[in-house]
Amino acid sequence: MSKKIKLGILGGGGDSLIGILHRVASSMFDKFEVVGGVFNPALEESEKFSEEIGINRDKIYKDLDHLIEEETKLPAEDRIEVVSILTPNFLHFPMAKKLLENGFHVICEKPMTTSYKEAKILEDTLNKAKTIFAVTYTYTGYPMIRQMKEMIAAGELGEIQKIDVQYYQGWINPIIHDEEQRNSIWRLDPEKGGISCCMGDIGTHALDMVEYVSGLQVEKLLADLNYVYSDNKMDVDGTVLLRFSEYVKGVIRTSQIATGEENNFTVKIYGKKAGLKWEQENPNYLYKLEDGQPMKVLKPGHPYNSAFSLDGTKLPPGHPEGIFDAMGNIYKGVAKAIKGEQYHPGEFPGIKDGVRGMNFIEKVVDSHAKGNVWVAMDK
Amino acid sequence: MSKKIKLGILGGGGDSLIGILHRVASSMFDKFEVVGGVFNPALEESEKFSEEIGINRDKIYKDLDHLIEEETKLPAEDRIEVVSILTPNFLHFPMAKKLLENGFHVICEKPMTTSYKEAKILEDTLNKAKTIFAVTYTYTGYPMIRQMKEMIAAGELGEIQKIDVQYYQGWINPIIHDEEQRNSIWRLDPEKGGISCCMGDIGTHALDMVEYVSGLQVEKLLADLNYVYSDNKMDVDGTVLLRFSEYVKGVIRTSQIATGEENNFTVKIYGKKAGLKWEQENPNYLYKLEDGQPMKVLKPGHPYNSAFSLDGTKLPPGHPEGIFDAMGNIYKGVAKAIKGEQYHPGEFPGIKDGVRGMNFIEKVVDSHAKGNVWVAMDK
Amino acid sequence: MSKKIKLGILGGGGDSLIGILHRVASSMFDKFEVVGGVFNPALEESEKFSEEIGINRDKIYKDLDHLIEEETKLPAEDRIEVVSILTPNFLHFPMAKKLLENGFHVICEKPMTTSYKEAKILEDTLNKAKTIFAVTYTYTGYPMIRQMKEMIAAGELGEIQKIDVQYYQGWINPIIHDEEQRNSIWRLDPEKGGISCCMGDIGTHALDMVEYVSGLQVEKLLADLNYVYSDNKMDVDGTVLLRFSEYVKGVIRTSQIATGEENNFTVKIYGKKAGLKWEQENPNYLYKLEDGQPMKVLKPGHPYNSAFSLDGTKLPPGHPEGIFDAMGNIYKGVAKAIKGEQYHPGEFPGIKDGVRGMNFIEKVVDSHAKGNVWVAMDK
Amino acid sequence: MSKKIKLGILGGGGDSLIGILHRVASSMFDKFEVVGGVFNPALEESEKFSEEIGINRDKIYKDLDHLIEEETKLPAEDRIEVVSILTPNFLHFPMAKKLLENGFHVICEKPMTTSYKEAKILEDTLNKAKTIFAVTYTYTGYPMIRQMKEMIAAGELGEIQKIDVQYYQGWINPIIHDEEQRNSIWRLDPEKGGISCCMGDIGTHALDMVEYVSGLQVEKLLADLNYVYSDNKMDVDGTVLLRFSEYVKGVIRTSQIATGEENNFTVKIYGKKAGLKWEQENPNYLYKLEDGQPMKVLKPGHPYNSAFSLDGTKLPPGHPEGIFDAMGNIYKGVAKAIKGEQYHPGEFPGIKDGVRGMNFIEKVVDSHAKGNVWVAMDK
Repeated sequence: MSKKIKLGILGGGGDSLIGILHRVASSMFDKFEVVGGVFNPALEESEKFSEEIGINRDKIYKDLDHLIEEETKLPAEDRIEVVSILTPNFLHFPMAKKLLENGFHVICEKPMTTSYKEAKILEDTLNKAKTIFAVTYTYTGYPMIRQMKEMIAAGELGEIQKIDVQYYQGWINPIIHDEEQRNSIWRLDPEKGGISCCMGDIGTHALDMVEYVSGLQVEKLLADLNYVYSDNKMDVDGTVLLRFSEYVKGVIRTSQIATGEENNFTVKIYGKKAGLKWEQENPNYLYKLEDGQPMKVLKPGHPYNSAFSLDGTKLPPGHPEGIFDAMGNIYKGVAKAIKGEQYHPGEFPGIKDGVRGMNFIEKVVDSHAKGNVWVAMDK
Repeated sequence: MSKKIKLGILGGGGDSLIGILHRVASSMFDKFEVVGGVFNPALEESEKFSEEIGINRDKIYKDLDHLIEEETKLPAEDRIEVVSILTPNFLHFPMAKKLLENGFHVICEKPMTTSYKEAKILEDTLNKAKTIFAVTYTYTGYPMIRQMKEMIAAGELGEIQKIDVQYYQGWINPIIHDEEQRNSIWRLDPEKGGISCCMGDIGTHALDMVEYVSGLQVEKLLADLNYVYSDNKMDVDGTVLLRFSEYVKGVIRTSQIATGEENNFTVKIYGKKAGLKWEQENPNYLYKLEDGQPMKVLKPGHPYNSAFSLDGTKLPPGHPEGIFDAMGNIYKGVAKAIKGEQYHPGEFPGIKDGVRGMNFIEKVVDSHAKGNVWVAMDK
Repeated sequence: MSKKIKLGILGGGGDSLIGILHRVASSMFDKFEVVGGVFNPALEESEKFSEEIGINRDKIYKDLDHLIEEETKLPAEDRIEVVSILTPNFLHFPMAKKLLENGFHVICEKPMTTSYKEAKILEDTLNKAKTIFAVTYTYTGYPMIRQMKEMIAAGELGEIQKIDVQYYQGWINPIIHDEEQRNSIWRLDPEKGGISCCMGDIGTHALDMVEYVSGLQVEKLLADLNYVYSDNKMDVDGTVLLRFSEYVKGVIRTSQIATGEENNFTVKIYGKKAGLKWEQENPNYLYKLEDGQPMKVLKPGHPYNSAFSLDGTKLPPGHPEGIFDAMGNIYKGVAKAIKGEQYHPGEFPGIKDGVRGMNFIEKVVDSHAKGNVWVAMDK
Repeated sequence: MSKKIKLGILGGGGDSLIGILHRVASSMFDKFEVVGGVFNPALEESEKFSEEIGINRDKIYKDLDHLIEEETKLPAEDRIEVVSILTPNFLHFPMAKKLLENGFHVICEKPMTTSYKEAKILEDTLNKAKTIFAVTYTYTGYPMIRQMKEMIAAGELGEIQKIDVQYYQGWINPIIHDEEQRNSIWRLDPEKGGISCCMGDIGTHALDMVEYVSGLQVEKLLADLNYVYSDNKMDVDGTVLLRFSEYVKGVIRTSQIATGEENNFTVKIYGKKAGLKWEQENPNYLYKLEDGQPMKVLKPGHPYNSAFSLDGTKLPPGHPEGIFDAMGNIYKGVAKAIKGEQYHPGEFPGIKDGVRGMNFIEKVVDSHAKGNVWVAMDK
């Protein structure tokens, strides 16, 4: 029997993209073994899927309640220790809460909950539970993002004075202009998707990234969203002005109607001494700009990177790693935490990140609804 | 005696950068000859400079009044026909007005005036004068910008739904953080530089470009400027939310404190059918994005470009042309207009562009001063 | 008990880079489970390592002979089915031969053997064995390389007329100029590294890639190697002129002294109708060049890619995958073959690729030794 | 009357590309004035063209003999001082020779002559003449090429160990595959084009660049050319192995059948301490590679560049200059030389560059004809 950490998965069955992302990431450092879960609401589908991914049926459950009931009966060494929640968004909160209350570690896809209120409740639950909780803002797992974070923390940019983040996609373009389609997909249905489409899905990544790399917190924001059609109920594009403090400003730009864009997420941070730029689609390049100096192009795996960045690179320079590797780094951090090993505070996003994200979504929608005015984020 | 159009220049003496830009541009298509002007407030300096650039002294004048007085006495074929104004900003308006009133064609550096009011007066003057007037928004002279404009006009993007323009520089960074410097350079002195530094200098380029390539007009805007220090009187950074119509939105982002950036001016326009992207520092590439299609990279000089774009390229593909060539294209358009030859309506920016620019500056500052609220631009 | 294909590994223990590459790749599609092997010549080290990667000790063996002896005693369903050989180069041949003769499937790191003679023997062995054999020319697993191969096979380039492949690294630069170092590392010791360093290690990748994507075979070659110092016994740089047929020529350029280069492997193929370019360090871009057309930039995951290419992409466009994913695709192909499922002929490199590689090394060294003359490759 | 250097031009009339390139370049620094010449074999065409470019007819001549006869009668201050030769290749030699013998400075397009023998004769002529002579290897005028040259001369790369130059175009692809076309264009007719097409036209640029930036000289070479069809008499593609000294090697790769390539001229030089890379189509970027250091990207106009490089940049960083500006720098150097001012030894290519180029062409063709063997270049 394997001595890896036993991982259960909720959702992610069939040819789910998020499913394969988590399975690959979990196996990447030989730390986890997927042993069961509830891949699908239909038990027979879950069982069929367990065949496909080559695992036994004994830990495949009808639903989460059965999983909790049965697993908690087992001796600790046979038990699922950590559960990854990959189900539709509205299930994240109740599932995470129940798991935490029953002593499981949890890895939760984003958005963590469907409201800020739920997010705060979950925070309380976790505070009591004392288990490990991660939210998978995957992009924070890239080695050059870690390097960016560490360079900023080390003062290489000096005081930050300007932040600009872009997250442009074009995937909703063919949908939004078709009346029938835009009124039928779940992403644009507030009952299923929450109060925001574009900001909820990708704006939260942008906010998390901004705060992750800069170490600053957004104090207040002013948002301008675009719904494109009067019968469309959810934003598909938006720009958010950010204020970190009186003279430290920023902007988050997001779109799902930037026709032809794939997953164009870019981060630019400028300080008094230098600037840093990074692009998700070419994640192995970090650009450092300084007045009157040649631009420097940093890449993963070199000794000039921080230990934390280097810990996220498996091969020597010039062997490109990608998004599976970024998620793998997050899982690696969770494994360290579960095993009680030392880990870097930024090694995986946690409850605070999830709470900030939900607060951001609500504040953005509020600012827009009030006519694009400044609203303060909670501290 | 040369049969070229006789060009006089005001300002641009010594090692002025704008001086060499205009001289090279004017000579590029064998259309103009610099014959004189007032290069410097001191006559002896002007005369010395005329030596350096190898022209005779007989059309070097003490000041604009003398130039007008003497030149208008001459028979038409011996006279300076067109004057380029490269003097400090506050002189643009009085000089341009006087020249137009005396029958000269005018090529005016930007900003065209120091206020919207002046700009409107100049517009009236020009309407009476019926001579040619150009404002040198240089970047519109690039062949791939012309191609962008024509593709959009031809409907290749479908209806535009999103516009994003960035103009980031870092040059003021070493200045702004030094109290003495920021309180002494003319750029940050409202008496000399007008009411806006960053928006006035580069924001206007962004606005002009947006309207030039898209064919749309900004209806209203909401601006957030950054002055960085309480004792600093002029903006050095700012973001402007744009509304072209209810559901067509955009953003202009400008900065002079984006540390390490040189002249990073980028334009992105997304329509229902496709998107286009362009970067000033690599001006010979135009990127076309479409859902589910390979990105296309257009370059100058190819038969697939429009006639207007091709008219702006002198050599075959792969021979990079730059900003001197862009300005040369603008001068070429002015030459055509002066000679009464047919020219493309977008071949050089004119009084309307100048007027819009001044209106933009005032509205942006107004929006910011009022607490970042929407203000309408004049039509 | 897991129902995955049981994979044993020879070598790759400790923090071996090739070890983690193979483990991650094998687990990527839920097809394989690493169950044991000989990670290290010292049994206790192997056992310790099995702890680290969370697997049981029962299939950890003292050496290959014990592995074969014990495993072949087991019922088929309990047996290691496939073995990955990650040991030092000189062990590849004897290990692969023994495994094939005993009915195991084999995944062998490159170089497959240390001589062409051994390669031919192994080919014979495999022909008798009828099991699955793969050589891990990893780069052929990239989705855009597969796309390149298929576009060429479909005639999108027309007849090929020019091939140019570069593989530049700089890692040996700090070593080669230090007399002691260059006379002590195994890579430059013919007893341990074979007859070629640079051509053996990376030239073979270039040759394999050329023939893989083009579908052509090198008929003859002329090589110029560089040993840099007279006391250095192995090439660290070299250029090889290629002839595919009288008028179809190419060039392979390789270096380990291209100071500062990481793993700069680029492939350019030009045909009568179009050209294609690809760079290993940015593997998710494929550039298509045509006379008088905008360059097209193809990326993975789009419907315009071939089914074979798409099979190698796990996430939607804009989510970068890297070298682990490329190796994962090769393992996926091997899994299909082992299970008797249908697979694409180019899904994993096999014995022919290994044989060609060994022939190439010997011919290159021969050409150089004879004074840079043309020598024919075997058919 | 203008006080600029009086420039006459031979050839370059009508919409000649080389014509506009030289005219723009000559005017760029206010040093030259085009005053006449022989633009066309037909006098009336020359006169018509003089109208188009706005110059008087009094220095338009029927042919070179008349030009020399009439101009030498004039007082020095009224005379054409320097003549640019832009005629078909076979006329370069006799025209240049005659001009030098009559005391004119000469700017000659490349190839300087049609044979090495002629080149050596011209060298002798120049040695007696003591006037200024330039050959327009335009690319050496780029500021980042000058920077590259100076960094290498200053030892920033350490000893050079590897040189790789590529010059790929695709323009002959549509021609070469059409039997009628390939047998009718002058470029492929040895009577008109000399003994080499591809190597003569672009291979010589590559050779000149290699020696210009590295400061090294090619000692011997081995060439493999491609004629593609048996009835085609001139090379359209070729690779040349270079030896600078026993262990310092290089390669020049040129093609006119690299389908879809425009003017893809790249230079890579690797030394013991660092490497440098440059691409003609993006000429404002110079990449410095060092072991274990971030790559540095140098751009024109920054204080970190050498004085010689900075002298070739007119505007601040971020304002892209191009090939006209590069040629302008060469003309500027010639102007300094004519005026007896101090200039940098690399400021314009001269007779030595022309002689090397002709020697290179003949040696390359010789090496290929002899079966791709090593041949020595003259010293």
